[in-house]
Amino acid sequence: MDVLKELEEFRKKDIPYTRVLGSMCTTPHPIAIRAHEMFIETNLGDPGIFRGTFELERKLVRLLGEILHNPNACGYVTSGGTEGNIQAIRAFRNLKGIDRPNVIVPKSAHFSFDKVGDLLGVEVRKAELDEEFKVDVSSVESMIDDRTVGIVGIAGTTELGQVDPIKELSKMAIDNDVFLHVDAAFGGLVIPFMDEPMDFDFKLRGVSSITVDPHKMGMATIPAGGLLFREEKFLKALEVRTPYITTKYQWTLTGTRPGTGVASAYAVLRHLGFEGMRKVVRRCLKLTEVVKEEMESLGFETVIEPVMNVVCFKTEHAYEIREELMRRRWVVSAIENPKAIRLVIMPHVTEDIVREFVSEVRDVMSKLSVEP
Amino acid sequence: MDVLKELEEFRKKDIPYTRVLGSMCTTPHPIAIRAHEMFIETNLGDPGIFRGTFELERKLVRLLGEILHNPNACGYVTSGGTEGNIQAIRAFRNLKGIDRPNVIVPKSAHFSFDKVGDLLGVEVRKAELDEEFKVDVSSVESMIDDRTVGIVGIAGTTELGQVDPIKELSKMAIDNDVFLHVDAAFGGLVIPFMDEPMDFDFKLRGVSSITVDPHKMGMATIPAGGLLFREEKFLKALEVRTPYITTKYQWTLTGTRPGTGVASAYAVLRHLGFEGMRKVVRRCLKLTEVVKEEMESLGFETVIEPVMNVVCFKTEHAYEIREELMRRRWVVSAIENPKAIRLVIMPHVTEDIVREFVSEVRDVMSKLSVEP
Repeated sequence: MDVLKELEEFRKKDIPYTRVLGSMCTTPHPIAIRAHEMFIETNLGDPGIFRGTFELERKLVRLLGEILHNPNACGYVTSGGTEGNIQAIRAFRNLKGIDRPNVIVPKSAHFSFDKVGDLLGVEVRKAELDEEFKVDVSSVESMIDDRTVGIVGIAGTTELGQVDPIKELSKMAIDNDVFLHVDAAFGGLVIPFMDEPMDFDFKLRGVSSITVDPHKMGMATIPAGGLLFREEKFLKALEVRTPYITTKYQWTLTGTRPGTGVASAYAVLRHLGFEGMRKVVRRCLKLTEVVKEEMESLGFETVIEPVMNVVCFKTEHAYEIREELMRRRWVVSAIENPKAIRLVIMPHVTEDIVREFVSEVRDVMSKLSVEP
Repeated sequence: MDVLKELEEFRKKDIPYTRVLGSMCTTPHPIAIRAHEMFIETNLGDPGIFRGTFELERKLVRLLGEILHNPNACGYVTSGGTEGNIQAIRAFRNLKGIDRPNVIVPKSAHFSFDKVGDLLGVEVRKAELDEEFKVDVSSVESMIDDRTVGIVGIAGTTELGQVDPIKELSKMAIDNDVFLHVDAAFGGLVIPFMDEPMDFDFKLRGVSSITVDPHKMGMATIPAGGLLFREEKFLKALEVRTPYITTKYQWTLTGTRPGTGVASAYAVLRHLGFEGMRKVVRRCLKLTEVVKEEMESLGFETVIEPVMNVVCFKTEHAYEIREELMRRRWVVSAIENPKAIRLVIMPHVTEDIVREFVSEVRDVMSKLSVEP
């Protein structure tokens, strides 16, 4: 059999994004795909060869820095949020040079921080959340000791889309002379485009680094993550010597890395512009409201009032509902604490999809004979 | 300005592969590009959604395992060689659970092992090389102590394309009860297709894991690295829990990751088959001989008789020659010890390119008024 036909058979088994309401990724924007294809053979692991692509990466970093209130931020385009979080904490650890270091993250932090802990040999302390599922600032404070190299706040938690009180964390970081990393992998390209954006970025003096992923709400192709530092010293703390390529040092986690994400992320942000991104975000937020109302009409209750385009509905039957939806080729997530089903209303979601989905949920509930 | 036009301007500044003789990456095979485009929106970070793509990854791992004499090997498609090396050593470290662990790598090991050391808090000891630039087995042996979790051999060193005595290392690993990782990022898709392949893979009982990168000699699109383990216990040692996606555990370093590399790598290997890959490798090796003869006719001498499609030519003026070639938009590498210029004859290199390149080198030598 022709190999492309064989590949098509595999591809058909994937669930199309039109039935996915449980992922922070989305269909790439058409301009992202065109940009990606132009850069398909590029390798940022060797910037002396791919000089133009490397220059474009500098421009994208500057653009992201501008969005996050620090045009002089430095950083690079990562493989995704996990790399961003690993590298930020690695820089903190290396700069502080403390024996048996620890970092403090909210209990709501992404599971990539478990990788961070195991990889880097850094103790990851998990701070309590308040009743709104924001990190409890006094819990963070109580965990800081003389081995703490940094604290972490989340702008757009994976489960609930909640935003931690970054302003308080920033003050705490300054007062205690520790670094502050903001994991805004999701929220970093949502909050700046909201009508009333909360403070979460370099505007706050204590923020040392931010993870912000264009392959989530930036509608870029995968992989296109972003890691930004306030100053160059953090990047320097990650350098290793590179003898045989065209540059002398490398601060990225990976070696060979594609330029496709740089091109696609840049294309989307430039093509849509600030106003275009505002429209995308506004539409997702509005649709989140629609979903909320529809689900409430089925008797569901949200875990928190949605802060961004993530919404969770409490139910003791979260896993059964998710499984039954899966059997029908609909994808949502389930969370454990509190038990709930979780929806992410990404740009690929339309009103029609929402309507179809909600009617499927109604059907699932009646088949399983359960109430929310 | 239209953003795609702007991107084109950046892309034009990149040096085309037709002038690159100093990279282990290459123009992707046309079938790789078509496969890549079919999978452009896939995300292996959520295998419950991208079930078909995930199944395809299992098939590719099996195919790579077959090539490397262990169809039951387990593993996954990484972002590249660096991730493969990090994850292998991380698995060794976690399985052994020894305080202040060390690994022993040849002095010729890729700089990614410096990242491994810094990231994982593992001491990286560098063993001496013999006169052929293979690792000196007795040097490795003398460095093993009760804190050693693993040793590393290279099958296709980055600088010279040399292959370490993996058979001896394998025996040593068994005798000393340590793990053995083979970094075959480059050679893993060269050696199996040579007329007289040396022993370097799972055929040797002591080999625990292998890095093998389809985005190098496998002509896949970036990113398409590979990490294979002899047994599942190594993967298990990398697992973290994943609460909100469709699976329960994740052993990859990154979270979100593209399926494009899986599709493109699989497409090339299936499309060309074993015989097709032999032809590609044979052609590269033959052309390496041509380059060698042409450069020798200019008075150059090789550092070692080429083992694969990498060849280095001794010269005190390596850096000047490289810089002058760079100014003329030709890319080669320079190595430090011994001083030499380094060429990698990848599948994009043709006889015409070689002829044009050698005549440029002649011109550069005369302009710089230097002898090799």
